[in-house]
Amino acid sequence: MKTLTRHLSFEVPARMAFLNITSEVEKAVAESGVAEGLCLVNAMHITASVFINDDESGLHEDYKEWLEGLAPHAPTSRYRHNRTGEDNGDAHLKRQVMGREVVVAITKGRLDFGPWEQIFYGEFDGRRKKRVLVKVIGE
Amino acid sequence: MKTLTRHLSFEVPARMAFLNITSEVEKAVAESGVAEGLCLVNAMHITASVFINDDESGLHEDYKEWLEGLAPHAPTSRYRHNRTGEDNGDAHLKRQVMGREVVVAITKGRLDFGPWEQIFYGEFDGRRKKRVLVKVIGE
Amino acid sequence: MKTLTRHLSFEVPARMAFLNITSEVEKAVAESGVAEGLCLVNAMHITASVFINDDESGLHEDYKEWLEGLAPHAPTSRYRHNRTGEDNGDAHLKRQVMGREVVVAITKGRLDFGPWEQIFYGEFDGRRKKRVLVKVIGE
Repeated sequence: MKTLTRHLSFEVPARMAFLNITSEVEKAVAESGVAEGLCLVNAMHITASVFINDDESGLHEDYKEWLEGLAPHAPTSRYRHNRTGEDNGDAHLKRQVMGREVVVAITKGRLDFGPWEQIFYGEFDGRRKKRVLVKVIGE
Repeated sequence: MKTLTRHLSFEVPARMAFLNITSEVEKAVAESGVAEGLCLVNAMHITASVFINDDESGLHEDYKEWLEGLAPHAPTSRYRHNRTGEDNGDAHLKRQVMGREVVVAITKGRLDFGPWEQIFYGEFDGRRKKRVLVKVIGE
Repeated sequence: MKTLTRHLSFEVPARMAFLNITSEVEKAVAESGVAEGLCLVNAMHITASVFINDDESGLHEDYKEWLEGLAPHAPTSRYRHNRTGEDNGDAHLKRQVMGREVVVAITKGRLDFGPWEQIFYGEFDGRRKKRVLVKVIGE
């Protein structure tokens, strides 16, 4: 069995943003030498997501508006979590909607993707350093 | 290590529907010869889901109504994504609620399921051909 | 390849609650002897979740209130599923928001976690015995 562990780092200047990280994951898969296996990609922070969807800027704006409707940032007093001194209660909720992780099949040495699948890092409490874990296992 | 890759195809006549695909996944697991391992099942399209829940028709109607409330299809002009000529902006949101994939344990050659767990393909933008990937790894 | 299968049991006295199960998962990983691999943790019941987020009681109250807003328990007549004699239609919806499972990387024999990641069992229809599956694979 072969395995590879890679940590990616991001510091997003906005509170909420989506970054296409597909090529960085592809690079890790190539380096692993795994032909058949699984690739886990997960946010290591609990106010961020990794998800798979379309690389289309209008959709990303739709996501932001929709998530803001489901879990508004303001007023920050609406979240008990913010009594701890944080202002990111909403980000912990948004992350649950978008998910923590994706698991992608590796077939013949490549991510086994449908035509439009792209991997995104979803940031909901940016302006600080965050990490994503890529773990490849297989042979 | 043993691996198996299987692509399932669907063409759902409705815009939104749920199909029980458990037996097709079980068949792939049996063919793989894997006794202990993991089985990934994911939608290969970004307006569809794979999820695990109950095979109960009332619940499926509840899901449809609930998802339509969370991310209404109409008016299609409410989504920026639809300015690209699509009318499926809502489907990209519904899919995030229901999820892209499931990972199921394989124990003693079978899906290690609780009493009511069934695997569903969730379609949110049907009337076209879509695929689901089944990837089995283990030994 | 090494694998380990462990079933955890819970009986939560409340309808909705979140239990930190991180140490039980860590114990299973240690017993497995796996240094590099993946750990799947999933609810075996379809009205419960396994998810990763913060062990902060205010946040957990926020989750409860938010989920109750997204999928209210009462009136139970609002869900077709409850015509089967159940009263847990809402629990099947809440579970989809919070997710069925997490997959966690194992690196150097330990869960490869960010600073605040903790694994929770999320119960949405308690007062009965439920199980969680831990499956470890790797070497």
